[in-house]
Amino acid sequence: MDLSSFLTSLVTSFIIFMVLVFVFTWLSRKPSNAVIYYPNRILKGLNPCESGRRTRNPFAWIGEALRSSEEDIIAMSGVDTAVYFVFLSSVLGIFTLSGIVLLPVLLPVAGTDKGMKSKSEGNNNEAMTSLDKLLMGNVTENSPRLWAFLLGTYWVSFVTFYVLWKAYKHCSELRAAAEMDPGLKPEQFTVLVRDIPPVPEGQTRKEQIDSYFKSLHPETFYRSMVITNNKEANKIWEELESYKKKLERAELTFSESKTASNPDGTRPTNRTGLLGLIGQQVDTINHCNDKIKDLSQQLEVEQKITVKEKQQASALVFFNSKPAAATAAQTLHAQIIDTWTVMEAPEPRQLIWTNITMKFYERQIRKYVIYTIAFLAIVFYMVPIAFVSAFTTLRNLRNLLPFLKSIVDQPAIKTILEAYLPQIALIVFLALLPSFLLFLSKSEGIPSESHVVRAASGKYFYFIVFNVFLGVTLSGTLFSSLKTIEKNPNQIITILGHSLPTNASFFLTFVALKFFVGYGLELSRLIPLIIYHLKKKYMCKTEAEVKEAWAPGDLGFATRVPNDMLIVTIVLCYSVIAPLIIPFGVMYFGLGWLILRNQALKVYVPSFESNGRMWPHMHSRILAALILYQITMTGFFGVKKFYYTPFLIPLPILSLIFAYVCNKRYYLAFRSTPLEVVAHSAKDVPNMEMVFAAYVPPCMSLDKFNDADQFGEARSQP
Amino acid sequence: MDLSSFLTSLVTSFIIFMVLVFVFTWLSRKPSNAVIYYPNRILKGLNPCESGRRTRNPFAWIGEALRSSEEDIIAMSGVDTAVYFVFLSSVLGIFTLSGIVLLPVLLPVAGTDKGMKSKSEGNNNEAMTSLDKLLMGNVTENSPRLWAFLLGTYWVSFVTFYVLWKAYKHCSELRAAAEMDPGLKPEQFTVLVRDIPPVPEGQTRKEQIDSYFKSLHPETFYRSMVITNNKEANKIWEELESYKKKLERAELTFSESKTASNPDGTRPTNRTGLLGLIGQQVDTINHCNDKIKDLSQQLEVEQKITVKEKQQASALVFFNSKPAAATAAQTLHAQIIDTWTVMEAPEPRQLIWTNITMKFYERQIRKYVIYTIAFLAIVFYMVPIAFVSAFTTLRNLRNLLPFLKSIVDQPAIKTILEAYLPQIALIVFLALLPSFLLFLSKSEGIPSESHVVRAASGKYFYFIVFNVFLGVTLSGTLFSSLKTIEKNPNQIITILGHSLPTNASFFLTFVALKFFVGYGLELSRLIPLIIYHLKKKYMCKTEAEVKEAWAPGDLGFATRVPNDMLIVTIVLCYSVIAPLIIPFGVMYFGLGWLILRNQALKVYVPSFESNGRMWPHMHSRILAALILYQITMTGFFGVKKFYYTPFLIPLPILSLIFAYVCNKRYYLAFRSTPLEVVAHSAKDVPNMEMVFAAYVPPCMSLDKFNDADQFGEARSQP
Repeated sequence: MDLSSFLTSLVTSFIIFMVLVFVFTWLSRKPSNAVIYYPNRILKGLNPCESGRRTRNPFAWIGEALRSSEEDIIAMSGVDTAVYFVFLSSVLGIFTLSGIVLLPVLLPVAGTDKGMKSKSEGNNNEAMTSLDKLLMGNVTENSPRLWAFLLGTYWVSFVTFYVLWKAYKHCSELRAAAEMDPGLKPEQFTVLVRDIPPVPEGQTRKEQIDSYFKSLHPETFYRSMVITNNKEANKIWEELESYKKKLERAELTFSESKTASNPDGTRPTNRTGLLGLIGQQVDTINHCNDKIKDLSQQLEVEQKITVKEKQQASALVFFNSKPAAATAAQTLHAQIIDTWTVMEAPEPRQLIWTNITMKFYERQIRKYVIYTIAFLAIVFYMVPIAFVSAFTTLRNLRNLLPFLKSIVDQPAIKTILEAYLPQIALIVFLALLPSFLLFLSKSEGIPSESHVVRAASGKYFYFIVFNVFLGVTLSGTLFSSLKTIEKNPNQIITILGHSLPTNASFFLTFVALKFFVGYGLELSRLIPLIIYHLKKKYMCKTEAEVKEAWAPGDLGFATRVPNDMLIVTIVLCYSVIAPLIIPFGVMYFGLGWLILRNQALKVYVPSFESNGRMWPHMHSRILAALILYQITMTGFFGVKKFYYTPFLIPLPILSLIFAYVCNKRYYLAFRSTPLEVVAHSAKDVPNMEMVFAAYVPPCMSLDKFNDADQFGEARSQP
Repeated sequence: MDLSSFLTSLVTSFIIFMVLVFVFTWLSRKPSNAVIYYPNRILKGLNPCESGRRTRNPFAWIGEALRSSEEDIIAMSGVDTAVYFVFLSSVLGIFTLSGIVLLPVLLPVAGTDKGMKSKSEGNNNEAMTSLDKLLMGNVTENSPRLWAFLLGTYWVSFVTFYVLWKAYKHCSELRAAAEMDPGLKPEQFTVLVRDIPPVPEGQTRKEQIDSYFKSLHPETFYRSMVITNNKEANKIWEELESYKKKLERAELTFSESKTASNPDGTRPTNRTGLLGLIGQQVDTINHCNDKIKDLSQQLEVEQKITVKEKQQASALVFFNSKPAAATAAQTLHAQIIDTWTVMEAPEPRQLIWTNITMKFYERQIRKYVIYTIAFLAIVFYMVPIAFVSAFTTLRNLRNLLPFLKSIVDQPAIKTILEAYLPQIALIVFLALLPSFLLFLSKSEGIPSESHVVRAASGKYFYFIVFNVFLGVTLSGTLFSSLKTIEKNPNQIITILGHSLPTNASFFLTFVALKFFVGYGLELSRLIPLIIYHLKKKYMCKTEAEVKEAWAPGDLGFATRVPNDMLIVTIVLCYSVIAPLIIPFGVMYFGLGWLILRNQALKVYVPSFESNGRMWPHMHSRILAALILYQITMTGFFGVKKFYYTPFLIPLPILSLIFAYVCNKRYYLAFRSTPLEVVAHSAKDVPNMEMVFAAYVPPCMSLDKFNDADQFGEARSQP
């Protein structure tokens, strides 16, 4: 790619970004759009605008985002979001500190050498561009200038260690503070018990669980809740809820139809058959009322049946103090380990009910089956990606499909195509995967939503690094040099080292596109806005339906984190080879921080809270990217025939030691709750009935339904 | 090796064994030797002979060993010994079940084929022996007869799975029973705390620990004991003890010297200088009395200084109930994990005081340094072993050192040398290592003796398998075929496969020598007997000294288990290639079971009790041997060019799954104490002062010394 197409791409991206920012400024000032641009504040009962009045300054949001403290973020969006900002600012810090040293040093060192020119003239296989002159590839083989790059590699590594160490400490403190918070968190009193052995003769499941835990925790056991198979009850409940909605809607329609000309109104009718198209015509309001009455009775019967007959081999056990629950969750209970397995209970809203009841070995088997499927998916997606990236250079396209020549050779089209085509193809391609990976992770049998998100994020990270980063680098190289390799397979390392810098410009454009267009869209929320207005106009009637139409969702860490990780990996790996990428990385994370700060404060509503459990996941992936970078650099220095390349070997070892120490020092406190933390929080016993009630699934709790009946005999401590 | 030298070796071994058994029968009937042959019974205050009278039957011990139940073993020698017998009988079971099927099937199948003969004639590089005819090597390549061997491989694997599953279950029950035992075990009330952070201003170490644990365990915390650096105190205490012994001895000498001719006796004297050879001549009794008085005072002063000034960042924390201690030991205490690390306390007698106070990262670093040293030791011991096994064939010896020809060519010498020389060299060689490995493992910073034994046993196992088994197999092969390999390196697999059966006879003799001579010596206890009689005659005076001279020691699992494992590995790996080895394996473990049963009941006194913690260690190593066998077989079938070799690939995978399931199901209960077990044991609170006193190191507890002073302020619960 030459300089002009690179600049075209940058400028176009920037223009799109500015347009989107302008659109945002314009649209967000209209009160009717407040539910799209300030839903988090509205749901929390706050005035959409922070200062209480609409400012005239269109960039007020920037000031608000910059002024907001970590406490604001925790208050508005929870610890998980605060930890995500720690991640963003850590990476920003790593890139800024790296850039301050690498840019002024390495660019002149590379730019004034002539290594590539002399080579290109010899090989005559590639045109020299002004961009490529600034890359490490331009340095002569085994030149003493390479020392600067080697020291640069060390600098980036040590900056990363320093920033990550600080960040891990900070996240650990955030988590401890959140766990010490005196507010009622039902999950701190609860333990999830799975793999309960078969009920002994003459006991009910409930008696079995209660007697077991009462004997082991005589003073702290409060009561237990047997997990039931709620499939049937849930089905009825959902049907009931849908009729309730229908009724509300019909009543609204009816009252609206009462105009002056028609004071009695027209009672809405519908057909009972398929999609309301066939079957008997009925009065909707009456029909719904009948149905609701009917289903309520059914639900009540089903609830009783469920409680009695559909008990599973799992339970939630409640303790009357936080330390008791924390110790119980960490202590081995049974001599045979695949029975009575205990773990800390997730938040009620995160519980995945269907996964709780899965048996021990079923979970294990599912886990490995899913790993295999994910592995296959990651490896064999390589095929289409390789195909896509083979087309990423116009020259390849023209060579392969000669009939395109006449179109492609026009300079304007050529520039635009070269700048955008491959990146857009890649981004669209990546949009297909996340939901598949979330589905896979859920099938593993993980009992909590936040863990599923982490698992999906992990899989997505592998996918992205293997396929996008390695895939593009390798297959771009392989394709363009296929003939050379065919003749002499041993040359592959040399070719890889030579063309790694060639791909730098691809990734420069990729990063720029991501942050300008990606964050522009993020800020402007054009798509949710359009969908909302369409829905509001054509589909929503009732208040609840409108509310549903603008529900902002959460930040979507499952895809957001791996996408950021891809940028981390790309920028780290190219930081020394092509230092020009660092400002792009800084822009990505700086802009990201700013815009997401706005979104976190005003838009997204987190759907669960895991107290920063995501951090170790991010930490180890940043380190993985760092190690990949260090290994890549060792290979690249080798290709440059630098005599002192072995000086790089300590780096990956240092990274591993760093990872080990961090893990030893901080990780366990993210996996289980330290006693210190829960014991030092408020000591007064809360209303245990509320803790219990928080875990009753919605389909099992009706006003009519007195759950004291259900669990009456369980009250060990009234 | 030909048949005659093989038989010579067998017969000689058997004769030595019979002689040793006869010696045992004769010597053990002399009452003066009772302390050597029945020390365990004597120390337990029982009559040396079980029936109370000396039977005339010289083989009564066999009957007694066979009649003894597992409860007898647990009562006399503890759960660890019982688990060791589970190991012996499991392996015996595996070999017996394998042999019942493999011997009658595979021997005829191999013996009636002519594969080796036809090959030998072609290659003309090896003489045909009658033993080699019974090996799998004798089967023609890709013959359908190989199906029998393939099914044999499956049979051995499934037999192993079945027996190991039963055994693991049994050991788990044994451990649970031992932990439920109502007898007082101080370690069940105690938690070892390490890595305590620096003492805050204005607090003592003791106050810091007490306040921390009192706040986390307000109801169950009893008191704490700060670990002190006892080096000085211990030195004084040891000196004091030595003077006490000297005094006792001098008084005995004095009273003995009071004969009729010299009614006042001669007061013994000694010199105070180096080794009692130089310096001032003093009256021993007076001198010792002075010294004891002096040292007692010194010790008292030192104890006070130690308690006040030499406190370390570790402590033992005592709880007033077993479940409280078990949960505390399993619960994470601090947010920062490298502080306040807790673990279950080992038995008082197992505690390695100097290792307890080691810091977190020091332990980690030491661990990896030791692993590296152990790895180097294992790998580079290969050099001398390769040298030894190069000499194991007389032909090599004669070829290398031609001047030996005249001696070696005499048939009698040749037979004896061939039969014994290499095996003896190997056994002597192996005797040097165990103490080095124990020292290494102790330096890792492991706080309990039983864990050190396991760690040393693990290292020894790797050493033995890599060096003895693989070393002998590979270097025997490499040496004899060096020239062939030099010319064509790719032939190495073919050569290995071809000469694996050649080494079978070496291992047959090795196993036979091990069980006949090894267990013969074990039973006869000739060496301890001689040492005891020498000591008694020339060195021991007082009762205590004599008792020390016959102290039997424990079973020495650190070397015993890996040696048995070597036999397991050898017999498993050759079970199908050379089924003749199975009866030898059965003999080894049958005879071992019988003789060690006798030794456990009557001789050895275990020095610690880890409630069968050794079993998972043995289990996983048996499985490792099985997997090595399965992989070897896959390679060997490949060399035999058997078309259906891939049918063996599921076997190692099955073994891994089996290991995984066993581990998941049983292992954790061996690592930490399940709540179920301790909660169901006796509930009455013992005398907590006794629990505390059990952990006071001997140098810190004197009658005079009132430890209530030391820990007075700690009594949280009077």
